[in-house]
Amino acid sequence: MAVPGPGYAITARVEVPSSASAAGDLTMAVGRVGGVVTAFDVVEAATATLVVDISCNALNEGHAQEITAALEALPGVSVRKVSDRTFLLHLGGKIEVTSKVSLRNRDDLSRAYTPGVARVCQAIAANPADARRLTIKRNTVAVVTDGSAVLGLGNLGAAAAMPVMEGKAALFKRFAGVDAWPVALDTQDTEEIIRTVQILAPAYGGINLEDIAAPRCFEIEARLREMLDIPVFHDDQHGTAVVVLGALRNALRVVDKKLDECKVVVCGVGAAGSAIIRLLRSGSPGDVLAVDIDGIVHSARPGLDDNLTSIAGMTNRSGTTGTLADALVGADVFIGVSAPNLFGAAELATMADDAIVFALANPDPEVDPALALQHAAVVATGRSDYPNQINNVLAFPGVFRGLLDAQARDITDAMLLAASAAIADVVTEPNASFIVPSVFDAAVAPAVAEAVRNATAKKDVAPA
Amino acid sequence: MAVPGPGYAITARVEVPSSASAAGDLTMAVGRVGGVVTAFDVVEAATATLVVDISCNALNEGHAQEITAALEALPGVSVRKVSDRTFLLHLGGKIEVTSKVSLRNRDDLSRAYTPGVARVCQAIAANPADARRLTIKRNTVAVVTDGSAVLGLGNLGAAAAMPVMEGKAALFKRFAGVDAWPVALDTQDTEEIIRTVQILAPAYGGINLEDIAAPRCFEIEARLREMLDIPVFHDDQHGTAVVVLGALRNALRVVDKKLDECKVVVCGVGAAGSAIIRLLRSGSPGDVLAVDIDGIVHSARPGLDDNLTSIAGMTNRSGTTGTLADALVGADVFIGVSAPNLFGAAELATMADDAIVFALANPDPEVDPALALQHAAVVATGRSDYPNQINNVLAFPGVFRGLLDAQARDITDAMLLAASAAIADVVTEPNASFIVPSVFDAAVAPAVAEAVRNATAKKDVAPA
Repeated sequence: MAVPGPGYAITARVEVPSSASAAGDLTMAVGRVGGVVTAFDVVEAATATLVVDISCNALNEGHAQEITAALEALPGVSVRKVSDRTFLLHLGGKIEVTSKVSLRNRDDLSRAYTPGVARVCQAIAANPADARRLTIKRNTVAVVTDGSAVLGLGNLGAAAAMPVMEGKAALFKRFAGVDAWPVALDTQDTEEIIRTVQILAPAYGGINLEDIAAPRCFEIEARLREMLDIPVFHDDQHGTAVVVLGALRNALRVVDKKLDECKVVVCGVGAAGSAIIRLLRSGSPGDVLAVDIDGIVHSARPGLDDNLTSIAGMTNRSGTTGTLADALVGADVFIGVSAPNLFGAAELATMADDAIVFALANPDPEVDPALALQHAAVVATGRSDYPNQINNVLAFPGVFRGLLDAQARDITDAMLLAASAAIADVVTEPNASFIVPSVFDAAVAPAVAEAVRNATAKKDVAPA
Repeated sequence: MAVPGPGYAITARVEVPSSASAAGDLTMAVGRVGGVVTAFDVVEAATATLVVDISCNALNEGHAQEITAALEALPGVSVRKVSDRTFLLHLGGKIEVTSKVSLRNRDDLSRAYTPGVARVCQAIAANPADARRLTIKRNTVAVVTDGSAVLGLGNLGAAAAMPVMEGKAALFKRFAGVDAWPVALDTQDTEEIIRTVQILAPAYGGINLEDIAAPRCFEIEARLREMLDIPVFHDDQHGTAVVVLGALRNALRVVDKKLDECKVVVCGVGAAGSAIIRLLRSGSPGDVLAVDIDGIVHSARPGLDDNLTSIAGMTNRSGTTGTLADALVGADVFIGVSAPNLFGAAELATMADDAIVFALANPDPEVDPALALQHAAVVATGRSDYPNQINNVLAFPGVFRGLLDAQARDITDAMLLAASAAIADVVTEPNASFIVPSVFDAAVAPAVAEAVRNATAKKDVAPA
């Protein structure tokens, strides 16, 4: 199922004897071993030899070596150097801090720094609300992680989480003009994380929690929401839930079903699954079954932790027990935020007619999307190489744009639902392969921001 | 002594009857009450009336009101609005976070974010030293404060300290290409400050402590230096010491004296004074007398804290006791980092011939610089409106540029002395009114960075 993607792209610098067929020979050699050529640049052309940069997508490191070997095997060809384009792009990091003010002369310095800055400090000391007017707080979000659940890779720690946090900060700016700063904490102690974020909070207008493992993430978010006067949003929970609900809204339009008549199976009850279930309640679904590695969640199941107990209390009205396969029988909607390859054609066949399947495990979904499409009416994944990519980038930039603009002090389910509807409504005529807008649709972030701003206007707004 | 400066600049939008003398009338009205006109712009010109923006420097808020009143008093003139240019410049903060990578299409996204970023995270998890190569750590410094000693204003707290930290970050970028981020901590507990910086450290290549009150700052710096593998530099201490020693080096050249034959009085034994005294030792001065609010520091003085005990142990070989006036008798060098207007002509007259006076208290020096010039051979202040401004901007950008480039793990006195000499040596022919380069001299930061880099090359360098 895997296809070479741009996440693993290499550029090989190759010396090749000059000939009319050189380009063809090289690109065909790459293609024969399954590499996808994306660029071909002649760097030097001498009489006898050409130096060429050939860029291509590979599956993984072994595949990249295979491609290199295939090039080397051509008569007279030598590979000088192979660069990994993803690593090249990361050299020195992905974000920088730039000055918004000019510092050309003494007058500039006197205003932006001493002595002029002293009056600005005094104004904020006298009226703390002025921090939102006279400092970066107005437009700045902390992207906070403890490195305990980095992407699907697990507990890599603070330093290794930085590339994700920097990427997130770059996306915040790119899609919504938000200044975001990576805050990677070298602790995984719940109390220390909470206290550290509290200590850092005055400089920020919002907190985006990221890649913090469940169940720790629930307590951290709840406690910080209680103590801080700025919104706290755990993207792995609410970002995912917002986009999933937006996609589901359009998927239901496509199959012409109502959520309150649907049986929904949510597979995976970590950060994302729990938040999806909680936000789903607002739509009063027919019934929701939560499934984790131990099967269907129900109140009588032994060993439920606080989060699962809470989930059990809001799902499974029918008292169903059993496995994921049992849960899928008659289900209208499957939402997977769990693990690869959990089921196949047999289970798909037991679902209701016009089923909706969101198989969001990355990079390998819960069920083969091609297979799912043979049985279900609408299929979505977390991948960019299939239609209907469920991607948090659709939510978090606009959500924080709206929160910052409204100077919101907290974030409510009403705001999340408004964001979710805004994402769905950017797609004016949804169909089975178009239930969410492209992440590059410039209409998304402003629509989400406006929806969130309007929802904050109803309550929870900071005093002027 | 005060002169209207650009730190308090206003722009008044004024409606005035059209006439040939309008510009003259307005500028003269401002001048009569002591305002300094810096710009005059006609915004609208109708037949009967002109709308004009008149910008001028004022002393303070009362003076700005006086200027406004003087304009209003002119026949037919009405002031529509008065803007404070320093506050205008601060609206929304002074720095922003920008992406260094292009995010135009799915391929870009796949490399800078998921799925490509996963491999970069794994590489850092496997080899933590790669964080300096593949994240912002390589070029990024945290500017850390607890808001307890903001400029000369005292304990204003974290939020009110932000404009200084943002300004510092802007200067870091402007003068040395360093990415600096303001970290304003909402705690003033020594242990919490230390632990928080430790928790945040993995993302940064250096820590610049700023505006943290003495004596807390000494313990925080010492403990962090001990525990972290990146350099920790308290700018109020070492930045000041580096520039003072550089200036002193050139001042001594001007008066043709050797430090080891000089009696030096350092007035103020807080962060800056203590660091100056410690760094001075490398030059083996003839003798140093430290003076604080209780007079000359000596080992037998009751009530010395840890820092003063340490200072007493390295100064005052002669066992002198008494007041600042007593200390100044026969002194070759006065270095004040203390409080305004502590002495005058009588005390100056008792100093040695060709005395050097650094009166660095801001905005009002320890002694009137004009008066000091009548007695001393070289006078320096912290102000931009006199010659020889001792300004930390000469030191910190280049110091961190050098530390980051060398991937230094700590910072030593040898590096500080090298930085100090580099600043001095940018001035090829020092004279009494030119002992330090301009902060806008583009040669300073590269010279300082190179000196620091070379000094780190001798030891304390991170393994590759």
